[in-house]
Amino acid sequence: MSRVVNLGHADQYGVRQGLITSNANQAVKRIRALGARKERERSGLTWAEGIRLVLGALDAGAELDTLVVSPELLTSATALQRVAAAERRGVPVLLVSAGVFQGLSRKAGPQGLGAVLRPRWIQLSDVVVGERGGWLALVEPQDPGNVGTILRTADAAGVAGVLLVGSSVDPYDLVALRASTGAAFTVPLSRCSWDELSTWAARSGVALVGAAGRANNDYRTVTYPKRLALVMGSEREGLSEEQRDACDLLVSIPMKGTVDSLNLAVATGVLLYEIFHQRRG
Amino acid sequence: MSRVVNLGHADQYGVRQGLITSNANQAVKRIRALGARKERERSGLTWAEGIRLVLGALDAGAELDTLVVSPELLTSATALQRVAAAERRGVPVLLVSAGVFQGLSRKAGPQGLGAVLRPRWIQLSDVVVGERGGWLALVEPQDPGNVGTILRTADAAGVAGVLLVGSSVDPYDLVALRASTGAAFTVPLSRCSWDELSTWAARSGVALVGAAGRANNDYRTVTYPKRLALVMGSEREGLSEEQRDACDLLVSIPMKGTVDSLNLAVATGVLLYEIFHQRRG
Repeated sequence: MSRVVNLGHADQYGVRQGLITSNANQAVKRIRALGARKERERSGLTWAEGIRLVLGALDAGAELDTLVVSPELLTSATALQRVAAAERRGVPVLLVSAGVFQGLSRKAGPQGLGAVLRPRWIQLSDVVVGERGGWLALVEPQDPGNVGTILRTADAAGVAGVLLVGSSVDPYDLVALRASTGAAFTVPLSRCSWDELSTWAARSGVALVGAAGRANNDYRTVTYPKRLALVMGSEREGLSEEQRDACDLLVSIPMKGTVDSLNLAVATGVLLYEIFHQRRG
Repeated sequence: MSRVVNLGHADQYGVRQGLITSNANQAVKRIRALGARKERERSGLTWAEGIRLVLGALDAGAELDTLVVSPELLTSATALQRVAAAERRGVPVLLVSAGVFQGLSRKAGPQGLGAVLRPRWIQLSDVVVGERGGWLALVEPQDPGNVGTILRTADAAGVAGVLLVGSSVDPYDLVALRASTGAAFTVPLSRCSWDELSTWAARSGVALVGAAGRANNDYRTVTYPKRLALVMGSEREGLSEEQRDACDLLVSIPMKGTVDSLNLAVATGVLLYEIFHQRRG
């Protein structure tokens, strides 16, 4: 099934010829499979789409497997120039029809630019903590939108890296990637168990500062340790008693009204900005 | 089409008999129509579901039109007792089959408790601003999850009320209601135009404190006016130049990394908590 396609835009910027028009194409099927977390973990790859997100990944020096372009859909000259420049550096570019791109896309009104990326996970055992290293540990976060939003905040507040502890959602899930506005590619990310977190903190002289609803220390009265990891529990459960006990310090955010907790991303933002403020002071 | 239904739970707590088993029932159709914003605005009613949200609305003294219960699904003794107590106070209770409830529900694994509510909008012209009134104005927010999350934070940070300025999403949309964890029923809400906001602020001696990416004032260095409204622009656009000019004071949140803005709910949380801190000091 061939289509009449205007390759004008792509030609002009030197993007190579050859257009995939079938959803049954092997490369296309491989990309579509990345919608499933299992396949992302097996392959070590993920799918990002949209001009802003893909160019953000390029800016951040993310490791690209393939760029995917629909010449019918992608009309941004800037984006096409960046694609051509990446291709000159040796990044494979897959040209697909609008129909095929729409089959890959998980958003309304796709812009015709996507990327298959290889997320970089850092190993906690390789992490060298600086004199004033401020880390963030998220224990079993369940909402990809929250995780992405938190990565965006972590980037802005100068966090050294984010540790995903236990059974966390995938920060490279497309919902998380979008909410991060690209910060998933700039903030160092690591996965570990609670025990690995404890061992690493003890070995590196990192104080674990846990957030808890009924802690004695108001978050604004505390002088935060130089080397720390702020530890946030999951949306529903918070930190367990055992985890709270393992923290060097517990802080709470005062609440005046009737709701019994803040949204995880908001609470993390309020705490990270207090810590950031003390550090920049 | 009749079903064999176990009315045991409902009977035990005195909830009245009579079970609707058809999706074509007029009352059921009227509730289903509340999924559309247009119908919510025409009728002045909204639909909330889930034990936590509905009991939160009851606690907050929200004006109830009807409670909707599926005896097959609702097994929480607390919830059934509250329903029975509301019915004794004269609140109409609609008993529906599990199938009918699932047709009304917009969440997976519905708990069998819903409510048709009449949201209370306050008129800006009726608002009397206290000596230390701290308000929040959201200009054209577009994401219901953000609006709900912000209401949750506003409740916690003791905000006097939230003003939705211009073409805002509906804070009584089910997504917003859920994200608010019930704060949509406890925080006074008003809708107004930008001009009405300006007029009200001038008349009431309320300083408009706008958030802007490139403002000269770091949000942590400012002493906030006693009577103020924090003014947040929309997710995509922020405040327009004209709106920024109309503010008495502009503040910005410093950002260290590569992302160019914070999520709206996070930025609002960071600013509200700084203002809250100065007020409780």
